[in-house]
Amino acid sequence: MQRGLTPEVGLISGVKPFAQLPWARWDEIVVGGHEIRSLRLTQAVAELVDQSHTLDRRVFDAISGPLEEIDREICPGTVFNGNPTVRKLASLGLPNGETPAQAIERLADDLRQFIQRHGVRHLVVVNVASTEPPISADLPPRWTDLRSLLDSPGCPLPASSLYAIAAFTAGASYINFTPSLGASLPALDELCSEQGSRHYGCDGKTGETLMKSVLAPMFARRNLEVLSWVGHNIFGNTDGIVLADPSNKQSKIASKDHLIGDILGYKPQTHVSIEYIASLGDWKTAWDHIHFRGFLGVPMTLQFIWQGCDSVLAAPLVLDLARLADLAQRCGQIGRMSFMAPYFKSPLGVQEQAFDRQFQMLEQWASEAKASLARADAR
Amino acid sequence: MQRGLTPEVGLISGVKPFAQLPWARWDEIVVGGHEIRSLRLTQAVAELVDQSHTLDRRVFDAISGPLEEIDREICPGTVFNGNPTVRKLASLGLPNGETPAQAIERLADDLRQFIQRHGVRHLVVVNVASTEPPISADLPPRWTDLRSLLDSPGCPLPASSLYAIAAFTAGASYINFTPSLGASLPALDELCSEQGSRHYGCDGKTGETLMKSVLAPMFARRNLEVLSWVGHNIFGNTDGIVLADPSNKQSKIASKDHLIGDILGYKPQTHVSIEYIASLGDWKTAWDHIHFRGFLGVPMTLQFIWQGCDSVLAAPLVLDLARLADLAQRCGQIGRMSFMAPYFKSPLGVQEQAFDRQFQMLEQWASEAKASLARADAR
Amino acid sequence: MQRGLTPEVGLISGVKPFAQLPWARWDEIVVGGHEIRSLRLTQAVAELVDQSHTLDRRVFDAISGPLEEIDREICPGTVFNGNPTVRKLASLGLPNGETPAQAIERLADDLRQFIQRHGVRHLVVVNVASTEPPISADLPPRWTDLRSLLDSPGCPLPASSLYAIAAFTAGASYINFTPSLGASLPALDELCSEQGSRHYGCDGKTGETLMKSVLAPMFARRNLEVLSWVGHNIFGNTDGIVLADPSNKQSKIASKDHLIGDILGYKPQTHVSIEYIASLGDWKTAWDHIHFRGFLGVPMTLQFIWQGCDSVLAAPLVLDLARLADLAQRCGQIGRMSFMAPYFKSPLGVQEQAFDRQFQMLEQWASEAKASLARADAR
Amino acid sequence: MQRGLTPEVGLISGVKPFAQLPWARWDEIVVGGHEIRSLRLTQAVAELVDQSHTLDRRVFDAISGPLEEIDREICPGTVFNGNPTVRKLASLGLPNGETPAQAIERLADDLRQFIQRHGVRHLVVVNVASTEPPISADLPPRWTDLRSLLDSPGCPLPASSLYAIAAFTAGASYINFTPSLGASLPALDELCSEQGSRHYGCDGKTGETLMKSVLAPMFARRNLEVLSWVGHNIFGNTDGIVLADPSNKQSKIASKDHLIGDILGYKPQTHVSIEYIASLGDWKTAWDHIHFRGFLGVPMTLQFIWQGCDSVLAAPLVLDLARLADLAQRCGQIGRMSFMAPYFKSPLGVQEQAFDRQFQMLEQWASEAKASLARADAR
Repeated sequence: MQRGLTPEVGLISGVKPFAQLPWARWDEIVVGGHEIRSLRLTQAVAELVDQSHTLDRRVFDAISGPLEEIDREICPGTVFNGNPTVRKLASLGLPNGETPAQAIERLADDLRQFIQRHGVRHLVVVNVASTEPPISADLPPRWTDLRSLLDSPGCPLPASSLYAIAAFTAGASYINFTPSLGASLPALDELCSEQGSRHYGCDGKTGETLMKSVLAPMFARRNLEVLSWVGHNIFGNTDGIVLADPSNKQSKIASKDHLIGDILGYKPQTHVSIEYIASLGDWKTAWDHIHFRGFLGVPMTLQFIWQGCDSVLAAPLVLDLARLADLAQRCGQIGRMSFMAPYFKSPLGVQEQAFDRQFQMLEQWASEAKASLARADAR
Repeated sequence: MQRGLTPEVGLISGVKPFAQLPWARWDEIVVGGHEIRSLRLTQAVAELVDQSHTLDRRVFDAISGPLEEIDREICPGTVFNGNPTVRKLASLGLPNGETPAQAIERLADDLRQFIQRHGVRHLVVVNVASTEPPISADLPPRWTDLRSLLDSPGCPLPASSLYAIAAFTAGASYINFTPSLGASLPALDELCSEQGSRHYGCDGKTGETLMKSVLAPMFARRNLEVLSWVGHNIFGNTDGIVLADPSNKQSKIASKDHLIGDILGYKPQTHVSIEYIASLGDWKTAWDHIHFRGFLGVPMTLQFIWQGCDSVLAAPLVLDLARLADLAQRCGQIGRMSFMAPYFKSPLGVQEQAFDRQFQMLEQWASEAKASLARADAR
Repeated sequence: MQRGLTPEVGLISGVKPFAQLPWARWDEIVVGGHEIRSLRLTQAVAELVDQSHTLDRRVFDAISGPLEEIDREICPGTVFNGNPTVRKLASLGLPNGETPAQAIERLADDLRQFIQRHGVRHLVVVNVASTEPPISADLPPRWTDLRSLLDSPGCPLPASSLYAIAAFTAGASYINFTPSLGASLPALDELCSEQGSRHYGCDGKTGETLMKSVLAPMFARRNLEVLSWVGHNIFGNTDGIVLADPSNKQSKIASKDHLIGDILGYKPQTHVSIEYIASLGDWKTAWDHIHFRGFLGVPMTLQFIWQGCDSVLAAPLVLDLARLADLAQRCGQIGRMSFMAPYFKSPLGVQEQAFDRQFQMLEQWASEAKASLARADAR
Repeated sequence: MQRGLTPEVGLISGVKPFAQLPWARWDEIVVGGHEIRSLRLTQAVAELVDQSHTLDRRVFDAISGPLEEIDREICPGTVFNGNPTVRKLASLGLPNGETPAQAIERLADDLRQFIQRHGVRHLVVVNVASTEPPISADLPPRWTDLRSLLDSPGCPLPASSLYAIAAFTAGASYINFTPSLGASLPALDELCSEQGSRHYGCDGKTGETLMKSVLAPMFARRNLEVLSWVGHNIFGNTDGIVLADPSNKQSKIASKDHLIGDILGYKPQTHVSIEYIASLGDWKTAWDHIHFRGFLGVPMTLQFIWQGCDSVLAAPLVLDLARLADLAQRCGQIGRMSFMAPYFKSPLGVQEQAFDRQFQMLEQWASEAKASLARADAR
C-alpha cells in the first residue's frame, strides 16, 4: 500500500461512504510486533509466494526491504499459559519463568520504546496470534482484584490478556482478532477506560462465518426453517496446526457456531469442524450444507463452497480495524468500539449478529465520526 | 392452511414483526383463476406428489375436494400474442379471434362474476403464467392512447397486460409474479390509479436471484471485487418448457441478471443460463460461481448450489403478496406498492436491490400499516 | 420385487452379462432375521416413507402385509460385547447372561427352524447390523482354539462373529455387509470350510467409498499426484446414531480410508469424518475434496457431492450378494467368495481396490459360473 | 523437463508399467510449429505466470531462452476455411489466396526443412489449434478423389486436414488433439497408410470428459439409471474465445456429449454448455450434475466440480502422445494408433468409451511394444 503496488481492494476505505473519512495515510503507519517463533517475516511471506501463490514474486521482491525493517521491530512475545502445541512453536530466545506482571511490564516497555523510537501518535495493538483454549476459571470482575493475581505464576490469564493489559498500560488501543480471551473481561474493560484507551473483538469474521451472518438472516426473513447447518473447514497454515489441538479448536468452533441460533431465534442442529490439511497451505475451503424446510414442510438444501486465502482475507480487516481505532481515538472515544461489530464473529456486547444490520451501525458511526472530525478540524 | 394441515413456514406472517398485522384469515380467502390449458388442478398437484415428492399423499387426499371446488372457478384465459411454445400448451376451448378489447372485457366479466358469486370484499389478481418474450414496441405513455390500440388485432400488448387491464377494470389489485410486461407501463400505472386500484411486480424472487440480492451486498460492503458471476439453472416443470424457447428465456435472464451490477456499482462479467431438464420436475438446482478479487488482487471463489422446489418456494410468496395487497387496500393505498420490493427480482421503480435494505422498507411499511389500521379500527 | 411393483434398477441382474445367470427367482425367496430392537419392520419402513420420502406410500400400503409376515420371522438377536450405544437400542426381551456358546446355539437353532419351516434350499445370513468397535485382542488362528473361548463370558468375540459361527453351524452362507469383525478371522475361515459353507465381506461399498474406488484409479493412471483427500459424510439414520459413538466410528473410518493409499501406491494426507445430522434421515450427503498436482506441480481440485439414500443404495447390494452366494453354492464353491470384491470397502484377501478391476473379476466369475451351472443342468 | 526443473507428474512415463518403455529422452526432442497469430511463446507463457499463476516465475525465467529458440522455429500456418472468429486472431503476415494444395505444399516444406535442419529422426505433428466448426460436406472416401479437390478455393477441407496432409506428405506422424476434422476421413487414412505414416485423434480428454468416461461406467455397472447428466464448463483462455463462436462450439459439445450414451447403452437427457468467462484465464471449472435413479426408483444426485488448469492438463498428454507415436513408429506401426484411445474424447474407430477398459488396451499395447522393441534391440 505504501508503495502503491496494490489497489485498495478488500479495504473499507475503498467503499463509498467510508472513502471520505480522514483515514491515517499509509505513509504515516509504522509496523512492529511481538512474536514467539524465530521465523522472519520474509520467510513467512516467501511461503505465501511459493506454496500458496497468493503474492506475486515481483511484489515480494519489491517489499523484502521494508519487511526486513519490520523484522527489526519485532520483539520476543510471551507463551504464558500456552499449551504444548503453542509452546512447540516457540523459539529458544523467549524469557523464561516470568510472572504475568513481569511479562506485562516487559511487553509494555517494548511498546513505549516503539512509540518513542518512531514518534508514533497513536499505537494500536492487534492480537493476530493463534487461538487459545477457553478459560474455565472465574475471574474477578474488578481490575484491582485481577491485578493482584498477576504476581502469581498460577494466574489463569492467557497470553492474549497479558498483551491487552500491556497495551492499555502503554496507552495503546487493543484489537482482539482471535477468539482468545484478550480484553473481554469486565476487569480489563475497566482498566481500558481508566487508561482512556479503547478496545474491541473478538475473532475476525473473514470467510465462512461472514457467510453465515449474511445467509442466516435470509432464512429468518423468508421464514424458511433451518433444520441443520453443517460447516466443514479445511486449511493448512500455522493457524491450522494450532487449531488441530482440540483444546484450542474448542474456542474457535464456539465462536463460529453461536451466531446461527442468535440470528434465527431458535437452535437448529449445527456442526462445525476444522481440519488441518497441509497441502492447502493458506487456502481455506469451507463447505457448508444448510438443510431447511419451506412451505408445506418440504425439505430443501443450500450448499456453499468458499475457497479463500486466509491471510489475504484477514489482512485488510486488520488494516481497517487499526485505522478505524485511530479515527475513534481522534474522536475521543474511550472503551469498547461497538461500531466494529461487522468485523467480528463474537462482537463484544452486541446482540445483533446479522451482517447487514451490523454494517448499518458502522455506517452510522462513520457518518458521525466524519462530522465530529470535521468540526474538530474547523476549530 | 385453511384446514390447518401445514404450518406457516415460508410465510412472512410467521415472522415476528409481521405476525401481529391484521392479515386476512385463511377461511376468508376464495380462489379462482384463468387458465389456457385443459389441465385440472388435481392433476397438476398429483404430479407434485408423484414426480417431485413435494406434497405428502395424505395431504393431497385431504385437499382434493377443495381443489376440485377451485377447478370449478377456473375460466378460459387468453393467449393473445402468445408465441408458438405457449400456444402449443393451450387447449382447444379458448375463444378464437378476439380483439384485445374483447378479451379484456371477457376476463373482467369473469372477475366481476367471481366477486359477486362469493361476495368477495377485495379481489387480487396474481399473474403466475409462464414468462412472455420482451416487447420491443414503443407503447404510448398515456392510457387514452394505449386504449385506442386495444381494438386492433395487431396491438402489441402481451396477455399479461390484458389481464392487468381486466383486473383494474374490475376493481381488482394486480400482482405480476413474472418478468412479463403486465402493468409495468406508465399507461397502466395511470389506469390503475384512475381506478383507485394498486399493483406491483415484477418477477418473484424465489431462489437463485434471492441469493444474489443477499450475497452481492456482502461483496460490496467488504470491497471484494467481483470479477465474474456465473449462474446455471436447471429444472423440469412447465415453466421450464416455456423458458426453453429463447424468446421467452430472454426476459427471464435479463430479470435475473441486472441486479448484480446494480448492487455492486460496476459491471462484472455475468452469465445466466436456464435449461429444461425433464427429470428434475419441480426441483430447481442453481449452481452459481462467483469469482472475486481480494487484497493484493488475489482471486478467490465462492460457489453455491441451491436445490429448491420451485412451486414450494413461490407459493408462500404469492400468498404473502395477496394478503399484503389486501392490507394495502384496507390502508387506502393506491398505485404502486413499492414496499413489496423484497419479493421481486425487478421491483418497479425501486433502485435498491439489496435484499436487506428492501426488507427494511417492508418492515417500515408494516409498522405504519399496523398503526394506520389500528387507528381505523379505533374509529 | 415379488409383486412386480418396482423394476430391477440397482440390481446387477439388470446388467447385461449378468442378466442371463440362473438367479434365484424373487418368489423363491423367504426373509427372516435377528433383531435387538423391538421395532417392527412396518414402523421402520414407515419412517422411510414419512421422513425420508424414499418409498411411495402406495407401494408401502401394498407391501405392509408381507412386511408383517417377515416381522413374524424375526427372532431376538444378541448384544454380546455390545457397547453402551448399542445396548441402549436393545429391547428388554433379549436373553440375559448367555455365554457366547449358548447365544450361538440359540441363534443356530433359530436358523435351523427357519430352514425347516419354509423348506429353504439354501440360507444366506447377511450382517446388516450397525458397526462394532475394532477388536484389539489377539485371537487364535485355529478354530479348535477359538471354540474353547466360547464358554467364557470374557470371550472377546463381537456379536457379528457369533452370528457368523451360528450361520456356519446351521449350514448357512454368511455375508458381512459391515466393517465389524464377522467371519474375517482365520479360525472362522477354517470353520466355514469345514462346514462346506461360504462367506465374504467386509463393509458394503455403497456411496462415497464406491466413488473413491472409481476416482482414485483415474488419478493413478493419469499420474496426477493426490496431495490430500478429505471426505465429510453427514446423515441421520440409526446407523448414524451408532457411528456417533467414537469407538464404533473408528472401524468405519478405517474401512472408508485405506483404499486411497492402496490404489495410489503412496499415502497422501486423508481425512474422513462422519457426523450424525438428524434432519437428513436416511439421506447421506458426502462432500469430498481432492487436492492434486498436475504437470509443473500445479495444484488443482476435484470436489464431489454425493446425495444418496443410504438404505436404497444398500438394499440392492444385499439382494445381489444373497443371490450371488446362492449361485456360488449351486456351483459347489466353498470358503471365501472373492469374486464379490467390488461390493466391499475391504474385500477379504483381495489387494485390488480399483472398482473396475474388481468388477472384471466378478464378470469373469459370472461367465465361469454360467458355464458350470449350464453343464450341471445338462447332466 | 529438459533442464530437470519439474518432475514427471502428469506423464504416463511416470506410471509403473510404462516407466520401463524406451521413451525418447527429453534432450532428444526439438520443438517447432505453425501459428496464425503473431504472439510469441514467451508472451503466451508470461500470461500463464501473471494471470493464471500456473507457472512459477523462476521456472519461467529459466526457460525464456529455450522458449525464444522455439519461437524461431515457428512458421506461418493457414486459416483456410477458418471462420471470422478465427480469422480475427490471425496476424497480417499470413499468405493470402493460396489454394489448399499450395498451402499444403508450403506447410510440408516447412516440416521437411525442420527435419533437415535438426536431423530429426521422427517428426510428430500435433494439432493443438482451436476447435473448427463441423463439416457438413460429403467428402470422397478415396484419396485420389479428395486430392483433386485441393486445387479449388472452394474445397471444403478445414485447416486441420491440410496440416494432416502436409504431415503425411512430409513423412510425419499426425495427432489430432482437437475435435476438428484433421485426419478422420477415410481418404486421409488411406494417404497415411500409403505414406507409411500413423495418426490418431480426436480431442484430448483432459478434464470433464475424462470424469465422464470414469464415472459413467460406475453407474452402468451398478445398474443405477442415469436420468440426466448436465455439464457446465467455464474458462477464459483463447480456446474459450474461439469456442464462444457457436459454429466452433458445436463440434466441441458433440465431442464432449456422446460418450455417456455410448457407455450406458441408453440415452439419458444430456446437456453440455461451455462459456467464456474472461476472469478465469486458463482455469477451467466444470460443474456436472448427474441425476440418477436407484432401487425402488428413488432419485439421487451426484455433483462434481472440477477446477483444473487447461494447459497444464493438456500439456503432459501432448508429450505422452508424441512420445507414444515415436514408440509406435519404432515398432513399425502404420495407420491408426488405436491404443491411444484413453487420451481422446472421440477415439477413432474405437467403440469402447470406458476409461478403464481403454487404459487396459494401452497397457496391453505397451507390454507388446516393450517386447517388440527389446527383440529389435537384441538383433
